[in-house]
Amino acid sequence: MDTVAITQQLHALRDRMDWQRFHNPKNLAMAASVEMAELVECFQWLSDAQARELNTEQLEACGEEIADVVLYLLLLCAELKLDMPSVVADKLAKNAARWPEPKP
Amino acid sequence: MDTVAITQQLHALRDRMDWQRFHNPKNLAMAASVEMAELVECFQWLSDAQARELNTEQLEACGEEIADVVLYLLLLCAELKLDMPSVVADKLAKNAARWPEPKP
Amino acid sequence: MDTVAITQQLHALRDRMDWQRFHNPKNLAMAASVEMAELVECFQWLSDAQARELNTEQLEACGEEIADVVLYLLLLCAELKLDMPSVVADKLAKNAARWPEPKP
Amino acid sequence: MDTVAITQQLHALRDRMDWQRFHNPKNLAMAASVEMAELVECFQWLSDAQARELNTEQLEACGEEIADVVLYLLLLCAELKLDMPSVVADKLAKNAARWPEPKP
Repeated sequence: MDTVAITQQLHALRDRMDWQRFHNPKNLAMAASVEMAELVECFQWLSDAQARELNTEQLEACGEEIADVVLYLLLLCAELKLDMPSVVADKLAKNAARWPEPKP
Repeated sequence: MDTVAITQQLHALRDRMDWQRFHNPKNLAMAASVEMAELVECFQWLSDAQARELNTEQLEACGEEIADVVLYLLLLCAELKLDMPSVVADKLAKNAARWPEPKP
Repeated sequence: MDTVAITQQLHALRDRMDWQRFHNPKNLAMAASVEMAELVECFQWLSDAQARELNTEQLEACGEEIADVVLYLLLLCAELKLDMPSVVADKLAKNAARWPEPKP
Repeated sequence: MDTVAITQQLHALRDRMDWQRFHNPKNLAMAASVEMAELVECFQWLSDAQARELNTEQLEACGEEIADVVLYLLLLCAELKLDMPSVVADKLAKNAARWPEPKP
């Protein structure tokens, strides 16, 4: 996933629509959390079994909400001058250190 | 960001820790939403101006929460057999159709 | 606020609509969190100043989302056999102990 | 639940701690949503069956998070000059109109 190219597309749209004044880090975190809740909403009344067997329409809805969250997080990363691939790699390394593979 | 390789690392850790029984789509969406709230918590008492001038420690905390959300969303995508780069590309295309560039 | 009477009304509607099978504690917590996000959505693009000067329509929308959260929390309390007024009183007492009034 | 008396207690603590500058509607909605996520966290890895059989410690944790949400919503209502019992009653009336009892 080319996060730099995606962010450029997001910024082009933002600038064209004059949304920059709304896109401070606090608002972007809120917006990401609202999209996240729309993802949770896809599952709220489903049993665990039903949640494993979504139909095409439900899967498409989930995919769209996941995308919305990722896109707002990319906009947030840009405002904070964080690189998403780097923070993700750092967290993976931290997880690996916390739960190390057992030595042979 | 190589989402396939990252997902493989997440699955290796999950299998080693025997977390698979917890990782149904519903639980993963909830877990992602909890991490998202930890990101919101970074900003909850800050002014818009303060949120633009995070110090190193605050930035690191934000980065970690962003990573946690992305990692749970990757696990969720894997359970739903969705490809994160594809759903993100689809959403960008949808946005471009919704707010098209004005013709010259 | 007569939480017992309100819960009775909620249960009467739930039983009439045959929603009981959906109302386990986990789902109710998720549903409350989704309503909470709809409350957050009311504020997401507003400045702090604008959020202090909502118009009648915005206030009504906020009030409705607040009510939705409270109603799901009452349903959750009922499932968990918790009494909302009691848990609120307990938390107030805990806060008072944590930040005691200075002695004269 | 005497929401007026509770709000007075909350305001007394807020004023004593000099928290008023943080308590604008936007921040209070965010804070309520963060507490809500802590409630969701209580359930995130539990099965539906386990969520119905919480032990004393888990119930106490849930109760505390529910209380935290209610308390922030009361603070938010105060800032917005909304009366929680009234907005809850209005929503119950709206629900009753939306799903009316069948006529005999």
